[in-house]
Amino acid sequence: MTAALLTDKYELTMLSAALSDGTAHRRTSFEVFARRLPEGRRYGVVAGTARFVEALAQFRFDDAALASLSDFLDRATLAYLADYQFRGDVDGYAEGELYFPGSPVLSVHGTFGECVVLETLALSIFNHDTAIASAAARMVSAAQGRPLIEMGSRRTHEQAAVDSARAAYLAGFTGSSNLEAQRRYGVPALGTSAHAFTLLHTGETGPDEKAAFKAQVEALGVGTTLLVDTYDITAGVANAVEVAGPELGAVRIDSGDLGVLTRQVRAQLDGLGADKTRIVVSGDLDEFAIAALRAEPVDIYGVGTSVVTGSGAPTASMVYKLVEVDGVPVEKRSTHKESHGGRKQALRLAKDTGTIVEEVVHPYGHPPESGRSLTVDLVRDGDPIADLSLEAARERVRFGLESLPWDGLKLSRGEPAIPTRMVSPGKR
Amino acid sequence: MTAALLTDKYELTMLSAALSDGTAHRRTSFEVFARRLPEGRRYGVVAGTARFVEALAQFRFDDAALASLSDFLDRATLAYLADYQFRGDVDGYAEGELYFPGSPVLSVHGTFGECVVLETLALSIFNHDTAIASAAARMVSAAQGRPLIEMGSRRTHEQAAVDSARAAYLAGFTGSSNLEAQRRYGVPALGTSAHAFTLLHTGETGPDEKAAFKAQVEALGVGTTLLVDTYDITAGVANAVEVAGPELGAVRIDSGDLGVLTRQVRAQLDGLGADKTRIVVSGDLDEFAIAALRAEPVDIYGVGTSVVTGSGAPTASMVYKLVEVDGVPVEKRSTHKESHGGRKQALRLAKDTGTIVEEVVHPYGHPPESGRSLTVDLVRDGDPIADLSLEAARERVRFGLESLPWDGLKLSRGEPAIPTRMVSPGKR
Repeated sequence: MTAALLTDKYELTMLSAALSDGTAHRRTSFEVFARRLPEGRRYGVVAGTARFVEALAQFRFDDAALASLSDFLDRATLAYLADYQFRGDVDGYAEGELYFPGSPVLSVHGTFGECVVLETLALSIFNHDTAIASAAARMVSAAQGRPLIEMGSRRTHEQAAVDSARAAYLAGFTGSSNLEAQRRYGVPALGTSAHAFTLLHTGETGPDEKAAFKAQVEALGVGTTLLVDTYDITAGVANAVEVAGPELGAVRIDSGDLGVLTRQVRAQLDGLGADKTRIVVSGDLDEFAIAALRAEPVDIYGVGTSVVTGSGAPTASMVYKLVEVDGVPVEKRSTHKESHGGRKQALRLAKDTGTIVEEVVHPYGHPPESGRSLTVDLVRDGDPIADLSLEAARERVRFGLESLPWDGLKLSRGEPAIPTRMVSPGKR
Repeated sequence: MTAALLTDKYELTMLSAALSDGTAHRRTSFEVFARRLPEGRRYGVVAGTARFVEALAQFRFDDAALASLSDFLDRATLAYLADYQFRGDVDGYAEGELYFPGSPVLSVHGTFGECVVLETLALSIFNHDTAIASAAARMVSAAQGRPLIEMGSRRTHEQAAVDSARAAYLAGFTGSSNLEAQRRYGVPALGTSAHAFTLLHTGETGPDEKAAFKAQVEALGVGTTLLVDTYDITAGVANAVEVAGPELGAVRIDSGDLGVLTRQVRAQLDGLGADKTRIVVSGDLDEFAIAALRAEPVDIYGVGTSVVTGSGAPTASMVYKLVEVDGVPVEKRSTHKESHGGRKQALRLAKDTGTIVEEVVHPYGHPPESGRSLTVDLVRDGDPIADLSLEAARERVRFGLESLPWDGLKLSRGEPAIPTRMVSPGKR
C-alpha cells in the first residue's frame, strides 16, 4: 500500500501553486523539532526515524492514488506526482537519542516540491513514536531494572498498536503482547492467558479454576504464567501451585491493591515452596504506580493504557518547518511562536563523568565548540545510508538515560534536564 | 494485508490450551462495553462498528502469519488457525449511537475459539474510534452549527489519522485534511496552504507575501483560503484582498488571541468590501476554545491535536468480556470491577418530547418494558447484514445529540447524562 495519501490536502495544493509559479524547484530545508517537551517532562526520546526513512521508499503515487486526486489537481501537478520519488537528503538525530526543546530532530533537504509533501507523514510518525518512547523510557527508569511488558494494543488504534510496541521496546521494554510487532520488527511477543480462559471453565457445578489451570499447564508447560485473580486470589494461588507444582513459572495479578497483594502472594508462594515462582502485576500501571511498587516483591510489570497513550502526552507536538530557501534562512515572525531559520545541526556537552550539561543547536557545518555531534546522515540522494537497527536504538536509550543528571530522572514535573542553547548564524 | 496478527499473543495461547482440553468448541458470548465514561464526560458516541465488521472478513491467517506463530503454537492450533474464519453472530449498537456506562456496545457469539481471537482487534478499533468520535461530538455541539475541519493527522499515528478523520466526520465534522480518508471513506478533503508556502516566496529582497498569495490564487482561484498570519496579520489581510479582490473565499488565522484577531480581521475585511470573505481559525482549538469563540465572527474552525487525541481521553477504555458459556452466565468476581454475566441487549427510554431519560440493559430477548431498542443484528453466520454507511451513522449522532437532556450537552465535568439500569436475569 502506498504511503503517499497519508498526507494533508494542503501539501498538494501548495505544490500545485508552487509548480505553476516555478518556486517548487527552489532548494529548501525543512526541520522537525519540538518547541517544548510535554508539560513537566524533563527529556524526550526520539523515535520514528527508521520508520520514516523506510516509508520514504513507499512514498510513490500509484494510479489509484492519482485518480483519487484528479478532481482537485491540475494535469501538471498530477504528472509531477506520477514521477515523484524523494531524491533529496535527510539528516537528524539517530533513533533513540534524547531530545530537548529546539533539538533539530530531523532535517529534510531537497526541492520545495519533494520536501513539502512529506510533512504529514514525517510528523505522524515522529509525533506518535516519540510520544510512546518518551513515556516508556520514564517507566523503564522507574522500574529500576525489573522487566516491563507492553500490553496496551487494545487501548489504541490497531496499527498504532504495532508501532507502540516497537517504540516501547526501543525505550527498554522487554517485549509486547502484540504479534504483528514480533513479525514486523522482531519485538519479543509475550503473554499467556486472560480471565476469559478461567471463566470458560465453568460447568454445571459452577466455576472450575483448577480445570483452567490444568489445561493451560498441559498446553504451555509449568513455566507458564497463571492468572490468579478471577475469583479469589488466595484460592487462586493455592490452585495454581496445586496444579503446576512449585516449579510454576509465574502468577499474574491484574486487580486490587497491588502493593498489599504482592506481599501476601509472595508469602503464600514461599510457604508453598514456590519461592522461584515470579509475580507479574498489571492493571492500569503508569510510571508513578511502577515507582510506588519498588519496595514490593514484584518481578515483572505489565503496562497497557498508559504507555500506548503516552502517559498523559499522546503526541510529541513536533512541527515540520521550512527553515531555508536557496541558502537563505527563513522564519515565521507574526507571533510569540519562536522559530529559528537556517539549516542546523546539534551537539551535546557533557562533564568528564558523562553527565550531560547542555544541548547546543548551531548552523550546519559550523560547530561553535567541540562536543558529541548528534546529527547523523540518514539519507543521501534518496537512499538510506544509516544503521537503522532497533537494537542500536535501544542501546542509545540506555546510554541516554545514564547520561542524564539526577534531576532529569525525576518523575515529578520539572524543567528540561539540560538547557538548549541556540547559536544563530550571525554568532558563528 | 491480514488483520489476524493485530492480536495479543495470549489469545492464541488460550486457544491452544482450549483446543487441547476441548473447551474451545463451547458456545460463548463476549461483550464489548465501558464500565465508565472518560472522567467527567456525560455521554459517548459509538464508533468503529463498520470497521470491525469489515475487518472480520480480513481476519484470516495466511501462510506468512502462520509461519510467524509456529515457534510457540502446536500443530493442532496452527491447523485450526489455517481454517479460521469467523462464522458466528455479532449484534450491538448501530454506529453513531450514544452510549453510557454498561451499554452493551457489541456482542460477539460463537465458539470460544472463534470469539477469543477477536479481542484485541475489536477493542483497538472501538477504543480508538469511539474516543475520537466522542471528543469530536462535543466540539460539534460547542460549534453550534459552524463547520469544523479535522486537521490533526500530523499529531497521531499515520494510520490512526485516517480513522480519526473518519470518526470526526462521523461525529459531525464537515471534512478533514486527510487525503487517504477521502479515498477510503469519502470524507471530504479540505485545505489550501501552510506558512511554508508563504515563506517559500522569499527572495533577495526579503519576504514577498503577495507573490505567495498571487501564486495560490492563480492556481486555486479567488475562492481559496489565504493564510494571513505568517508575518503581520493586518498587512496579510490587506495583501490578501489586494491580490484576490473582495471575492476572496476566506482567510485563515492560525495563531494569537483568536477572539481579538477575528473581530479585528472581520472589521478590516468588511472595510475592504470583502464582507463575504470568511474567517477560518485554527491553532490548538479544543471544545472549550471553540465554545469561547461563539460570540466572535468565526466562520469555520480547524481542529487538530485535541480531536485526534480524544481531547484528554485518547482511549475509550472499553473491555471485551466473556459473559456466557453454553447458555450459562459467567462473571469475574474477585474485585470491585463490576461485571454482569449473560448475553444482553439494551433499550433507551425517552419522554414524549424525545429527551432521553434512561438506558436499560437487560437479558437478551427479554425487554422489561417498551422503549427504543438499541441492539441491532450486525453479522449472522459470519456475514454482515446491517447498513454500515457513514452517512447513516452521522444521522444517528445528530439525532443522539438532539435527544440529550440540556445538562448532557454541558462541556463541564459531570455525571453521565442519563443513568443506566442493569436488569439482571433473575429480575426478568
